[in-house]
Amino acid sequence: MNSIGRFRLEHTDGQARCGCLQTLHGEVPTPVFMPVGTQGSVKSLCPMDLDNMGAGMILGNTYHLYLRPGDELLAQMGGLHRFMNWKGPILTDSGGFQVFSLSDLRKITPEGVEFKSHLDGSRHFFTPEKVIRIQKNIGSDIMMVLDECVPYGADLEYTRNSMHRTVQWAWKSRDFYSGETGKQLMFAIVQGGFFMDLRRESAARTCEIPMDGYAIGGVSVGETKQEMLDTVYFTAPLLPRDRPRYLMGVGKPLDILEGINAGLDMFDCVLPTRNARNGTLFTSSGKVNIKQARYRNDETALDPGCDCYTCMNFSRAYLRHLYMAGELLSFRLNTIHNLRFFINLARKARSAIQEKRFAQLISRYRNVEKEQEG
Amino acid sequence: MNSIGRFRLEHTDGQARCGCLQTLHGEVPTPVFMPVGTQGSVKSLCPMDLDNMGAGMILGNTYHLYLRPGDELLAQMGGLHRFMNWKGPILTDSGGFQVFSLSDLRKITPEGVEFKSHLDGSRHFFTPEKVIRIQKNIGSDIMMVLDECVPYGADLEYTRNSMHRTVQWAWKSRDFYSGETGKQLMFAIVQGGFFMDLRRESAARTCEIPMDGYAIGGVSVGETKQEMLDTVYFTAPLLPRDRPRYLMGVGKPLDILEGINAGLDMFDCVLPTRNARNGTLFTSSGKVNIKQARYRNDETALDPGCDCYTCMNFSRAYLRHLYMAGELLSFRLNTIHNLRFFINLARKARSAIQEKRFAQLISRYRNVEKEQEG
Repeated sequence: MNSIGRFRLEHTDGQARCGCLQTLHGEVPTPVFMPVGTQGSVKSLCPMDLDNMGAGMILGNTYHLYLRPGDELLAQMGGLHRFMNWKGPILTDSGGFQVFSLSDLRKITPEGVEFKSHLDGSRHFFTPEKVIRIQKNIGSDIMMVLDECVPYGADLEYTRNSMHRTVQWAWKSRDFYSGETGKQLMFAIVQGGFFMDLRRESAARTCEIPMDGYAIGGVSVGETKQEMLDTVYFTAPLLPRDRPRYLMGVGKPLDILEGINAGLDMFDCVLPTRNARNGTLFTSSGKVNIKQARYRNDETALDPGCDCYTCMNFSRAYLRHLYMAGELLSFRLNTIHNLRFFINLARKARSAIQEKRFAQLISRYRNVEKEQEG
Repeated sequence: MNSIGRFRLEHTDGQARCGCLQTLHGEVPTPVFMPVGTQGSVKSLCPMDLDNMGAGMILGNTYHLYLRPGDELLAQMGGLHRFMNWKGPILTDSGGFQVFSLSDLRKITPEGVEFKSHLDGSRHFFTPEKVIRIQKNIGSDIMMVLDECVPYGADLEYTRNSMHRTVQWAWKSRDFYSGETGKQLMFAIVQGGFFMDLRRESAARTCEIPMDGYAIGGVSVGETKQEMLDTVYFTAPLLPRDRPRYLMGVGKPLDILEGINAGLDMFDCVLPTRNARNGTLFTSSGKVNIKQARYRNDETALDPGCDCYTCMNFSRAYLRHLYMAGELLSFRLNTIHNLRFFINLARKARSAIQEKRFAQLISRYRNVEKEQEG
């Protein structure tokens, strides 16, 4: 049990790295993509589906789980793992991103943030300590500390104050939980918007706090791709080498590879699951919009090179039919494929790093993106 | 291949019987409950789910498949089995029930029925021959002949004329397909509303037509339970003993057992799948409405005696949470359970008949129903 939280760096290839993180629910080989299971299920999938696609770690949303079914109920039920019958590791976010994006009428004080539920308008107050208590009830393998995710376009002064508050909150979180390290892991989040000086200061001050891992937050808030990349490439090397590094909420396949190229290890995004439900599917030759008429009688697999349940068993014509007919199975088959694509992407990156050919891998994806844009 | 269509009667217990029907896609032990896969999928389930729950034969709706994706596309794709990747037997209904219940502005002539699509209002004309041609394109193991399903409350004269037309249509269907027997099977449908004289005449005239099986149609159209039972118990013994007997669109668990008790072999109904999506679940101790607050922290399985994936892996509390949160997984887990309940019901009936204890089985279910009503 003493090895819980240990991050073993295995190989590097330029800045890119692969490793292995030990959690209470097993080892997580990195780089890893984590499917998002907002409120106790990865939308449309059961644990068997996740096992079959090789999902290593999944993500739960603290904000959603706190509101419904409630973290106290989850504690009573033996935690989220037992509730949803998922035996692998779970990371929970801090709820910060949702409080600042989904809920109404928030008020931020040094102590925490007040918000109204997007479900019923009820008032709630999140403090750093409360958010950790909620995540203890959830029983996640990795807890994230409460942070403020500043909106895109926030000015220097606001962003600096916010970043300082986030550092304070990380200390409070650490103090609140310090006695029980070695069970649930805790990660802190570097903020600072798109001001590189603030990112540098945030990284320095955040990484002084003893944590099991460090994350880059506050990207994918509406910035340009270049701003995102600049921030990621600037910030990643400022994080400790011997701890897992997590890029929150990013992103498109190439963005994830860029993150890996910058030296990051963990990724999550709703893109594969949300796009699946809209009929937008990721393949090795680019995106497919399955509702297009040209797939009407297309007997080939969605992605002939893919080994997911969907591609092994069904044609594009069938997937198009399910989508057009509004069949529930459409959501599941599409989700299985898109997630397998993202999970495989992280695995391919891992192999490429092991074999010192990551530069080739990323350049292939950069070319695919150029072709799709051109 | 010559044995395709053979129905082997194995055991009887009173009027109840068990047997085995040979189809192009395998043997179907009877009594059997067939999950309804309206438009190319049993809603929310994939073929793996159906295999895991022991589904023997499933049903497809000719009306829906004709409109979308279209039977010609299905033929081009190698038939419905290949399209949806289902390796077991499929029965398709004739589309009659949907034409008379779903579509608009129908006009009935001796030649067939004109209707407007419920999807886009386009006009279509179904003849007995066309409906068989569609089912040949679909490639189902059992084709049903076009029939008119008279509305509840239709008078004697209308019902008699309609019944005569249905008999004519069955002859036309037989003539249209007679040369190819031994591949796809064809069943005709006894009609006659709730007039026993008409049911007797319909059975006599329909069973003169050489068919692979015979069905009772025109029940579950809004009649009382007693009218349904009277009709079923009156009509079943009029059907040939050496052919499979199919009760269309029925029904509740006890109704199915009553059908078996009357000597019927095959059943289909949307009840388990539709109710699953509404959160109404069938258990050995009666119906459960999973949204009720009392299940909020109920750690027990939905039906502790059930061996379905849902009951083996999740609690009532989790199923309630998924339902309340509108999670897509709710539809699937509930559907898996309800269908397993119905499939198991038919299997239990089969065992009971083999062991000459069917009377005990049905009396237990009659008591459960009385308790729920009382």
